[in-house]
Amino acid sequence: EKQELNARVILAHCEKWMERVGWTANFDRAADGTVAESHAGIEFVDSEVYKLLEGMAWELGRMPDPALERRYHALVARVAAAQEPDGYLHTSFGRPGQPARFSNLEWGHELYCFGHLIQAAVARLRTGHDDALPAVARRLADHVWDVFGPGGRVAVCGHPEIEPALAELARATGEPRYLELARLFVERRGTGTLGPIAYGAEYFQDDTPVRDATVLRGHAVRALYLSAGAVDVAVETDDAELRAAVEAQWEATVARRTYVTGGMGSHHLDEAFGTDFELPPDRAYAETCAGIASNMLSWRLLLQSGDPRYAELIERTLLNTVLVSPREDGRAFYYTNTLQQREEGVEPDEFEVTDRALSSLRAPWFWVSCCPTNVARTLASVQLSFATASETGVQLHQYGSYAIDTVLGDGRRVQLDVRSGYPFDGEVTVEVGGETAVEFALTLRVPSWARGAATLRDRGVPVAVDGDTVTIERRFTPGETVVLSLPMEPRVTRPHPRIDAVRGQVAIERGPLVLCVESPDLPHGLDTEHVEIDLSVPPRASANGAVVTLRGRADDQPASLLPYGDPVPAPRTAPFEAALVPYFSWANRGPSTMRVWIPA
Amino acid sequence: EKQELNARVILAHCEKWMERVGWTANFDRAADGTVAESHAGIEFVDSEVYKLLEGMAWELGRMPDPALERRYHALVARVAAAQEPDGYLHTSFGRPGQPARFSNLEWGHELYCFGHLIQAAVARLRTGHDDALPAVARRLADHVWDVFGPGGRVAVCGHPEIEPALAELARATGEPRYLELARLFVERRGTGTLGPIAYGAEYFQDDTPVRDATVLRGHAVRALYLSAGAVDVAVETDDAELRAAVEAQWEATVARRTYVTGGMGSHHLDEAFGTDFELPPDRAYAETCAGIASNMLSWRLLLQSGDPRYAELIERTLLNTVLVSPREDGRAFYYTNTLQQREEGVEPDEFEVTDRALSSLRAPWFWVSCCPTNVARTLASVQLSFATASETGVQLHQYGSYAIDTVLGDGRRVQLDVRSGYPFDGEVTVEVGGETAVEFALTLRVPSWARGAATLRDRGVPVAVDGDTVTIERRFTPGETVVLSLPMEPRVTRPHPRIDAVRGQVAIERGPLVLCVESPDLPHGLDTEHVEIDLSVPPRASANGAVVTLRGRADDQPASLLPYGDPVPAPRTAPFEAALVPYFSWANRGPSTMRVWIPA
Repeated sequence: EKQELNARVILAHCEKWMERVGWTANFDRAADGTVAESHAGIEFVDSEVYKLLEGMAWELGRMPDPALERRYHALVARVAAAQEPDGYLHTSFGRPGQPARFSNLEWGHELYCFGHLIQAAVARLRTGHDDALPAVARRLADHVWDVFGPGGRVAVCGHPEIEPALAELARATGEPRYLELARLFVERRGTGTLGPIAYGAEYFQDDTPVRDATVLRGHAVRALYLSAGAVDVAVETDDAELRAAVEAQWEATVARRTYVTGGMGSHHLDEAFGTDFELPPDRAYAETCAGIASNMLSWRLLLQSGDPRYAELIERTLLNTVLVSPREDGRAFYYTNTLQQREEGVEPDEFEVTDRALSSLRAPWFWVSCCPTNVARTLASVQLSFATASETGVQLHQYGSYAIDTVLGDGRRVQLDVRSGYPFDGEVTVEVGGETAVEFALTLRVPSWARGAATLRDRGVPVAVDGDTVTIERRFTPGETVVLSLPMEPRVTRPHPRIDAVRGQVAIERGPLVLCVESPDLPHGLDTEHVEIDLSVPPRASANGAVVTLRGRADDQPASLLPYGDPVPAPRTAPFEAALVPYFSWANRGPSTMRVWIPA
Repeated sequence: EKQELNARVILAHCEKWMERVGWTANFDRAADGTVAESHAGIEFVDSEVYKLLEGMAWELGRMPDPALERRYHALVARVAAAQEPDGYLHTSFGRPGQPARFSNLEWGHELYCFGHLIQAAVARLRTGHDDALPAVARRLADHVWDVFGPGGRVAVCGHPEIEPALAELARATGEPRYLELARLFVERRGTGTLGPIAYGAEYFQDDTPVRDATVLRGHAVRALYLSAGAVDVAVETDDAELRAAVEAQWEATVARRTYVTGGMGSHHLDEAFGTDFELPPDRAYAETCAGIASNMLSWRLLLQSGDPRYAELIERTLLNTVLVSPREDGRAFYYTNTLQQREEGVEPDEFEVTDRALSSLRAPWFWVSCCPTNVARTLASVQLSFATASETGVQLHQYGSYAIDTVLGDGRRVQLDVRSGYPFDGEVTVEVGGETAVEFALTLRVPSWARGAATLRDRGVPVAVDGDTVTIERRFTPGETVVLSLPMEPRVTRPHPRIDAVRGQVAIERGPLVLCVESPDLPHGLDTEHVEIDLSVPPRASANGAVVTLRGRADDQPASLLPYGDPVPAPRTAPFEAALVPYFSWANRGPSTMRVWIPA
């Protein structure tokens, strides 16, 4: 459904806005030599065009569309025209009147933009086309090799991103130099090649080499992109130490620096991770792009280990951070994803560009607009991470309704039809397709919240489910079904006692969804600042969320001028039932107040 | 004691640093025409020199010092030499190669800097000298009148400050144009004369006219300086509506947007107030300058109303926000004042300039270094707010050890010697001085936390104390004493239930001091993240703080990958006694962890 919205609305929305604010035209002006006087936007807007191209490429791979294909080729041609003879391609640097190339690695974002161009080219290669954009990307990567490769300048970009991109390009093209370049960029990080900045070297992870770090820190998107690249390099170069280091960092970060929504980053100032357990819901930054980057990292770790914990975090983050961003109509986005809205927000103008941190409601476009295009490329490709195939079987990591048609390592063809009303309904039916019986291992992930309560029926016969995956290995005949039933009763979730900011509060989850209380679901005159949950009445499931028992509370009378010192408790209202809705769906009914964590 | 430190160390520290970073030399270069190529620092560093001059002027008024006086005059001469023939004086604007004068009112800080020069001149006038700097200030204010006065440009500065400065200059010089100019700047605010900025018009209070606003919002220092100016204007123009509006804003802000330390501002990104009850201790911004600005506002409201609530907030803010800033040795400062330090900080280099928001320990100087000079001017003049005199009596607002020698409105001379070990000891002795008996009213403030427990002895005879002040009106004979005894038992303070971030935690206060637990006072191996307070054992007083009973706690075992979902509680240690110290004194023993709010 969200993929359809992406195809139908979001891609065109991003395209239209980037024309409107002049970011696409920067390439035309770079080609005709006038960009120095007329460059629109900050120095990394090239990357937004590239992320749109990546989203278009994935979408064309998912669902052919001649009109989209024409728009894609037209946009690629404009980008390609701006490439310089030596392969360099950036609209903000290097021409007369512009800063010199690579003169500001701390903030210039040149290699960062290159990385997004390369990822767009990889999407094109992965969807079966080695055409114009991959050619541009090869020339660009070759240029980077000449400048920053062995014997070249020992430096890195202030914003990691080219690392995973080069590793992916190496895989997609078989060119080992690109992998070596990715390796060099990963290894150089943390050695102090970048100059001092006000936020400190931690901001761009230049404080500690990747293999020595113990937890993710600094700017969240930077840290996560870098880690994704480090895993790619570790895997391709058989560097077990590097891979183990990133795995340990992932684990520490998830255990101590991650919101219940999977969101990462609690500092608005520098868009950064806080210290351990510093996770204020009302000041959650939880940038949409950090959620996407977190999933890029977890996906790589899942592929290497098969460990379902990675798939579980992907699910949590996708449903409760990434999908929060687009408005129901696909024409406005959250950049940050607060877990508590104390006052009703203000609807941004549909024709104004918004500052990223001020949007209390979703906004159509931002001065720094990394999130909408990142959502677009993610939605266009997300189905690729639902399942994997190995030599002998198929592993289902995410549930929904989709079809699988794959060939295992040894040539056996497996076709599966996965059907469910997940994440709202817990019953997942896997029906074997094809025309002949085939032997393989079918592995299904069992989320941690379902352990002990999930059931599985293979051709109607119950099968024991006791781990974090369950595997059925047999000869499957077309038409046979395996049905996994996951419990969908709402759960009361309490926070770790070191998360001071939500002490004495609970979150209600149902299946993979984090729920929230939103003011439109409260009796007239009550907002989410003035309710408590009555846990003596167990929450019960509703169609898309839960029904809980709340009590209203007036503001307590302060005992003194300041709000400290034994306020006299105000009386509570009688208990009443109220609906909790999925957090991802909030703020689609106009200005509202909202909270995920509810005082208990 | 802190005033001695200021005179001995802080003033010279600021002077030395501003020479070192070239901010003082900007004036020399402006005078010789070379500043456009060589200006040091951001566009409001002029103001730091002015705040130092203000601090020097107050200090010279407090305690003559020929060496300081020479340094003062030398610095004034360098500033005066940079004034242009038409009175304009700013080192960042208006010369060839610089932006035009008043071309960037949103961020240029020109009128803001003028305001600080004018306040420095007022300090000189108030300490009895109408010499060089007041002359410079008059020429500058006349220039502002020409440009922005009636019939001139209808505009305001992005950073309020000139408003209270002009009103004070009007009082000190009797020149009504300066008051009218202050009035115009106050009235124009909130009418949208400033252009759009990323943080929104609320940031510089241009969203709503002062008289229509209901609470302080946006950048805290800007909001508080503006309010101080608005009170000045309201009083001098008999504008009861404007004064009532600011009083109501003060009350709403104190009741909903103020930390227990008196600190204001909970957003790092824009140094701004959060929404109501958004007061996270670990992300408290509580800028030192906002504390100083808050006291400027409260002092003006106190003078107009005599309401002791204003004096009580001044005391809280002075002792628990402003005095936190300078290190014990006076050579390093906090810019922001967190209420919870989760990890040990890193000692900044004594010779490096620090970013304001990164200093987990006090730093010697900042790129934006408003706080050290603001502390200097505050400490040099703070004694002026301890007491006031009216037609018929003397009012003591703050306690400590000081002498009063004043002449009442009708000519009676009153001399008093105030002695106490306050804020550590609660006994305040007021001894009447002079040589002859005199009849007057002596009013003493009774803090809200002392109500019902304070006692007063007049010449040894108990007097009833039942309000927020107590007044003794009689004929006083030299040598007679009045002794006020304030209770100094530690108090357990609970937060308003809407302050989610400190739910289930308590603060311990003793007298006017907020206390904190700091890791050097915990058993080896325990930090402040791993303690709970046992309130079944009442806290007891220590010499400078309190002794409480704590229990240590290991990190609970998470039940899942993420820190959510019924963690298994770790065992607690046996209870032990630990010292709590005054919050203002923390981080003077090297890197430490600290918290004001303790889980109970």
